[in-house]
Amino acid sequence: MHLPWDGLRRRQQGRLERAATLGLGRMVPAERVGQLLETVIEPGDRVCLEGNNQKQADFLARALAKVDPQRVHDLHLVQSVVALPEHVALFEQGIARELDFSFSGPQGTRLAALVGAGRIRINAIHTYLELFARYFVDLTPNVALIAAEAVDDEGNLYTGPNTEDTPAIVEATAFKNGIVIAQVNERRKTLPRVDIPAGWVNHVVVAPKPNYIEPLFTRDPAQISEIQVLMAMLVIKGIYAEYGVQSLNHGIGFDTAAIELLLPTYAASLGLKGKICTHWALNPHPALIPAIEAGFVQSVHSFGSELGMERYVAARPDVFFTGADGSLRSNRAFCQAAGHYACDLFIGSTLQIDLAGNSSTATKGRITGFGGAPNMGADARGRRHESAAWLKAGEEARQGAATMPRGRKLVVQMVETFREHMAPAFVERLDAWELAAPMGLANPPVMIYGDDVTHIVTEEGIANLLLCRDLAEREQAIRGVAGYTAVGLGRDRAKVEELRARGVIRRAEDLGIARRMATRDLLAARSVKDLVHASGGLYNPPSRFRNW
Amino acid sequence: MHLPWDGLRRRQQGRLERAATLGLGRMVPAERVGQLLETVIEPGDRVCLEGNNQKQADFLARALAKVDPQRVHDLHLVQSVVALPEHVALFEQGIARELDFSFSGPQGTRLAALVGAGRIRINAIHTYLELFARYFVDLTPNVALIAAEAVDDEGNLYTGPNTEDTPAIVEATAFKNGIVIAQVNERRKTLPRVDIPAGWVNHVVVAPKPNYIEPLFTRDPAQISEIQVLMAMLVIKGIYAEYGVQSLNHGIGFDTAAIELLLPTYAASLGLKGKICTHWALNPHPALIPAIEAGFVQSVHSFGSELGMERYVAARPDVFFTGADGSLRSNRAFCQAAGHYACDLFIGSTLQIDLAGNSSTATKGRITGFGGAPNMGADARGRRHESAAWLKAGEEARQGAATMPRGRKLVVQMVETFREHMAPAFVERLDAWELAAPMGLANPPVMIYGDDVTHIVTEEGIANLLLCRDLAEREQAIRGVAGYTAVGLGRDRAKVEELRARGVIRRAEDLGIARRMATRDLLAARSVKDLVHASGGLYNPPSRFRNW
Repeated sequence: MHLPWDGLRRRQQGRLERAATLGLGRMVPAERVGQLLETVIEPGDRVCLEGNNQKQADFLARALAKVDPQRVHDLHLVQSVVALPEHVALFEQGIARELDFSFSGPQGTRLAALVGAGRIRINAIHTYLELFARYFVDLTPNVALIAAEAVDDEGNLYTGPNTEDTPAIVEATAFKNGIVIAQVNERRKTLPRVDIPAGWVNHVVVAPKPNYIEPLFTRDPAQISEIQVLMAMLVIKGIYAEYGVQSLNHGIGFDTAAIELLLPTYAASLGLKGKICTHWALNPHPALIPAIEAGFVQSVHSFGSELGMERYVAARPDVFFTGADGSLRSNRAFCQAAGHYACDLFIGSTLQIDLAGNSSTATKGRITGFGGAPNMGADARGRRHESAAWLKAGEEARQGAATMPRGRKLVVQMVETFREHMAPAFVERLDAWELAAPMGLANPPVMIYGDDVTHIVTEEGIANLLLCRDLAEREQAIRGVAGYTAVGLGRDRAKVEELRARGVIRRAEDLGIARRMATRDLLAARSVKDLVHASGGLYNPPSRFRNW
Repeated sequence: MHLPWDGLRRRQQGRLERAATLGLGRMVPAERVGQLLETVIEPGDRVCLEGNNQKQADFLARALAKVDPQRVHDLHLVQSVVALPEHVALFEQGIARELDFSFSGPQGTRLAALVGAGRIRINAIHTYLELFARYFVDLTPNVALIAAEAVDDEGNLYTGPNTEDTPAIVEATAFKNGIVIAQVNERRKTLPRVDIPAGWVNHVVVAPKPNYIEPLFTRDPAQISEIQVLMAMLVIKGIYAEYGVQSLNHGIGFDTAAIELLLPTYAASLGLKGKICTHWALNPHPALIPAIEAGFVQSVHSFGSELGMERYVAARPDVFFTGADGSLRSNRAFCQAAGHYACDLFIGSTLQIDLAGNSSTATKGRITGFGGAPNMGADARGRRHESAAWLKAGEEARQGAATMPRGRKLVVQMVETFREHMAPAFVERLDAWELAAPMGLANPPVMIYGDDVTHIVTEEGIANLLLCRDLAEREQAIRGVAGYTAVGLGRDRAKVEELRARGVIRRAEDLGIARRMATRDLLAARSVKDLVHASGGLYNPPSRFRNW
C-alpha cells in the first residue's frame, strides 16, 4: 500500500502551521522575512526563486542567501534565470546544491567556477517554455519566491507590466500544495487589476525597495554601424519581402534593432508596409517605436516589459496587450508559445557558427544557457496552420522530392563575420564540444542546430541553407558568406559561384542593394533622443541611456 | 498618421455602454442572454465560443445560434473544438462565416458538407497549443464566451476541475480589450478557489442547466481484446523498458488503456516499478487507477478532467494538481506545453499509416482535425534537457554519423493491422492527399509526419524507424509489421528478415514475450466495476459505463 496520498499537503500544512505559531500570517514584515524562509523552507526543497531575464525577486534572494545553512540546505533551484550575485551565493554557502535553469547571463563565469569546485550540480539547461513545462511534470517547486508590484487587503497581486514568468511559477506551485511567497513594492487598498488571485499565494512581504528590473532590450541607435544597416537591408529585401514574413520574433541586439529602425524607411520605400512584420512576439523594444508610429505594426505580444516604455505602451492599446489599468500584461509562457507556434520567423545572433550551421553562445569558462532561442529557433513540427512564408520555406526544404509536403519555420542567424577583438563568428568546431563534459552533459550545448537554421546572413550576403542539397553544399554555402575568416578563406570558389548562380548565396548586388546606400541616414531614429521624439515624448528611457 | 490608437478599447467601451443602457451589467439573467449577445457582438467579430474537447459553453452556444443573423453575422470563430450541433448551426444560419479550430469530432461530416455548400471558410486546423498561441498573435478574440462552475458576488470565477482552455482564452481576450462573457452553473457567496479573477470578465449568466462535459477519456476494460494486451506487452517490454521512459503522454483509446492496466501486473513483474511511467501529462484516465494505487505513478498533470474521477483525484493530491478545495486544476495550455517539452514519449493510434510512416485520422467526407496529437507527436527540437530515453533515441537516429548529437522524442503509433470492417491501417497513399483541395489546404492534413515517428507497433511486432538507414528501409520496416494488409503482403521477405536480424523489427518472440501469456487475465481491472473497486469506491463512473 501507498500511504499517505497527501504527503505534500501535510507538509504544506506543517509549514504554514510553523509559520503561524511564530505569528507569521499572510502579511509578513520585511524584517521577519529571513525567519519566514527558515521556517517554511525544508532541506532538499525544490525552490523557484523568481529570476526572470528582467524582473528579479531580489529582496527574497538576498534574504534566502542569509538564512542559516544549518537549517536550510541542499535546495534544488528551478528558475529561468540565474542573474543576481545572491543566486550564485546560495551555492557558495551550501544553501543550494542542485540547479535547473535556462539562462545565467552575467553569472556564467561564477557558475563555471562552482562546477569546477564541485559545489553545484547542474542538471540541465532549458529553453524557458521547456522549464515551465517541467514545473508541471517532474520539477514542480515546493516553494516559489516571486515578485509583484502590489498587494491589496485581500492578498491579490498586481504584477504591473512585468508579469513575465509569475503565472506559470505560481500555478505549478500553488496547485501542487507548495508554498508561494511574494515580495511586493507596495500595499494598496485596491489594485488596478488582479494578476494573481489571493488564494494562490501564502505569504506577502512589502520589500524595502522596489524589485530590480533590467532594461535588457534597449539598444541605443547611435551605436548601430553601417555594416548593420547593410545586413538589415539584406534581411528585409532578401528574406522578409521574399517570403512575405508577417509574424515574427527578433532576438536582442543591434543587428535586429537595425531592422526595426529600417522598417519605416527602407522597407516602406520598397512598398512593404502592411505586407511584412505586422504581428510580433516581442518585448516592447524602444527601437520598434518608429515602425509602430508609421502604422507598420498591428500587434505585439510580450514576454516581459521594458523600462521606460510604460507610458508609450499604455497609449498604444491597439498594438500591445494591456489591462484595464492601461499597463502591459506580459506573459513569458504564452509569448514563448506564440514565438514557437504562431510566428513564421525567428532571427537572432550568435557567437559561433560551425560548418554545418550549428550555433552556440556557450564559450569556455562560462556556463550560460540560451533563454528563448532554442524554442523560437527550432522548426515547430507540430504546427499545422499554413501561411505563405511557411509554405514557401517548406517547398524549398523539400526540393521537389516526392515526400509528404510540410511547411517550415524560417530561422535566421545574423552575424558579422568578425565579432569584437577580431574573433571569427565562423569556426570549424564549436567551443561547445569542449563544454559538454565540464557541464555534465552528454551532448554539446548547442543553441540552434544547423538542421533548424534556414538562412545565415553576414555582411557578405545571405546563405539559404534550405536550398542546399547535402551537407557538403551547406558547408560551401556557409563558407561563401564567411568573409575573411579562416572558414571563409577555405571556400571552394567555383562551388560558391555555382551556389550563387542557383540563388543559394545572394550578395547585396544580386538583390539590387547598392552598398553605398547602406548609411545610418536610413535609420528612422539615430539616437535614443530620436526614439523619445518618435514616441511623442511617451518613451522615458532609463538614465543610463540619456546623454542630453 | 495612425489614429486612433485605442480603437479596440473604444469598441469595448461602446459594447459595454450599449449593454448598460439596456440594464445589462455584470450579472445577466438567463432569459436576457440573447439580447446581451446581440448587443455586444458586432458583425465580423472574432469570437471564441468555448468548446473544449470536454467542457462546453453549451448554453451560450445555443443562445448564439438563436441570435438574429441580420444583427450578428460574418463572425469568425476561433475555438479549439467544434463539438456541438449549435457550433455548426452558426454557419448554416449565416451567423458565422470563418473558422479556425483544432478538432471537430462528431461534427466532421456536417463541416464537410458546409464546405461543399460554400457556407464556411476554414482557414486552418491547428494543434491546441498552436491555436492558443495565435490568440496572442493574429487570432485574438474580440469576444470570448466561456464556461465555469460558479461565480461569487464579486464576479470571480471557479472553474472546478475542468479549467481546460479557459485561462488561455480569457487572458488573450481580456487583455486586448475584448469582451468576456461566462456561463456558470451557480452563484455562490464565496468560492472554493478563484480560477479567473473578476476583473477579467465582463458579463456572467447563471445557466439553467450545468454545462455539458463529455467523458471522453473513459474506456471500459471489458472491451479490451487479447490482441491489445499483446500489443501493450510489446510496448512495455520493447519500448518503455528499453528506453527507460519515465515521462509520457498516452492518446485516447483501448490500446493505451491496455498499457495502463498492465503496469501493475506485467510491468511490475518485469521489475519496472519506479523505472518507467512515473510522470504523466494526462487527463485523469480511470484506467490509470490501478497503476496509481500500486505506487507506479508519481505525478499527473491534466489537460482537463474526467467525469466520475472527482473524488478519486481529490483523495490523491500527491499525484494530481489540485486546488485548496481539493478539486483538480487542469490547464490545457500548460499540459500541452508539458506534453511537448517535458515528456520523453507520446503514444497514440491513428486510422491510416503510409509507407513513409505518415499518419492521419482525416478521411473522406469528414473534416476533423487532430487536437493535441501534432504537438505531442512531434520531435521537440527546442528541448535541451537530457534524459536517458531522449539520449538513446537521439543516438539511434544519428546512427554513428559525425553530425552534431542531439536527443530525440519517442513518438509511437500503435495500431492493429486491420481496423473494424477489415479496413487496413496501412495504405500506399493516405486519404489525406485527396482532402487538401476540398479543405482549401496547400498540403495534405497529416496528423503525425513519418519523420517524427520513431516506432510503429502492431500485433505483428515493433518497427523501429530510428534504425532505418533510408526511406526504402523505412518502407520495408513498416511493411514488415503490416500483417496481412496489402502493404504487409507486399513486403520483401529477405529484407524484412535482415531488418529483424538488425533489431529494426522485433517480434514478440524476439522480446521473449510468449503470445499465449497475452490474456485478459493480465489486466489489473477487467471491467469498470473493477476500476471502482480499485479506487476504494472513490471513482464514480457516469451511468452509461455502469452495467451493475
